[in-house]
Amino acid sequence: MSSAQAVQAQFLFDFGSPNAYLSGLVIPDIEKRTGVKFDYVPVLLGGIFKATRNRSPVEAYADIPSKLAYEQLEMRRFIARHGISEFQFNPHFPVNTLLIMRGAVAAAMDGALAPYVDAVMRAMWAEPKPMADPAVGRSALDAAGLDGAQLLARTQDPDVKQQLIADTERAVARGVFGLPAFFVGEELWFGKDRLRDVEEEIVRRRSA
Amino acid sequence: MSSAQAVQAQFLFDFGSPNAYLSGLVIPDIEKRTGVKFDYVPVLLGGIFKATRNRSPVEAYADIPSKLAYEQLEMRRFIARHGISEFQFNPHFPVNTLLIMRGAVAAAMDGALAPYVDAVMRAMWAEPKPMADPAVGRSALDAAGLDGAQLLARTQDPDVKQQLIADTERAVARGVFGLPAFFVGEELWFGKDRLRDVEEEIVRRRSA
Repeated sequence: MSSAQAVQAQFLFDFGSPNAYLSGLVIPDIEKRTGVKFDYVPVLLGGIFKATRNRSPVEAYADIPSKLAYEQLEMRRFIARHGISEFQFNPHFPVNTLLIMRGAVAAAMDGALAPYVDAVMRAMWAEPKPMADPAVGRSALDAAGLDGAQLLARTQDPDVKQQLIADTERAVARGVFGLPAFFVGEELWFGKDRLRDVEEEIVRRRSA
Repeated sequence: MSSAQAVQAQFLFDFGSPNAYLSGLVIPDIEKRTGVKFDYVPVLLGGIFKATRNRSPVEAYADIPSKLAYEQLEMRRFIARHGISEFQFNPHFPVNTLLIMRGAVAAAMDGALAPYVDAVMRAMWAEPKPMADPAVGRSALDAAGLDGAQLLARTQDPDVKQQLIADTERAVARGVFGLPAFFVGEELWFGKDRLRDVEEEIVRRRSA
């Protein structure tokens, strides 16, 4: 017999991905409809790209303007479909997210990943701020009631650094080549537009 | 007031695309559910790639094995979702489709596009045969009750050649960068996995 608790759903993200941000706005609705909570797994998109030789759409399609335009059209469609009002493309894109991703690992170790993700995603993609700057990151965390100075200090801890590397390597070993990525059990989906399939698989496993 | 007749749906295809073949197996079900018939538009994928500087996934992801593996996973998922039993990857891929695409234009001019598409798609992706060879193409058409010799001869007609070029250029001008592509009115969708969105848009326009 399956139950909502027995279904494992994961959301692999990097704050640098606008499509991860948009996915993060939709996941709470999926959790409400299915009763299954997603585990948020911070991984480094730059590390995934390096390991798989993949590139961001902005880079890969730089010479294919109609393909890039279509990516942007599908972004607008996703935003319209889900009634998303808080999104602005970060003018500092691409943003080096190494420190804020390490901060996410530290926050997760402290059991504070959810408020950390909310605060940083909002600062990156709703406000949007130059979040590669440690001072900007720190004040965004402070403003959200988190301890920015302490989290920033933790980004230099070897266990935090090592955890982010290990989780990124594990994602690559499981077939991840870009973000956002989703797992239900060991089944992989890539991209925000697969969230419907992800939800269907969660429902299928719950009723199995 | 809208009606099924007032909604314009188009399916842009090239026989060289396995995902166009798979889409073609699903479109009849969408037509049955919505009452809206798709116009099949033959266009040259090679011409689209050349004009947009895009490449096939097999080529573009040759150095990104996990991305290519994911493409193949999504192909298997589509096949399973739609209960498709007749599909074999053509061992002669990539196939030069210039002649058989011109043949499709000639067949369309004769009002025989539907049986032509059925015969050639089946020969390409179900049997599958080396369809770049004119003799193979001719006998596949003959076997389907079409006049292979006459259609093959028509591929040298200037009006046939010109029509295929014009339809390909028009597709590029409308934002197409790959196949399969779909239009509902002037709204573009790319790829077999967008057929759900295409169907939703058809239904939305019918009830508008």
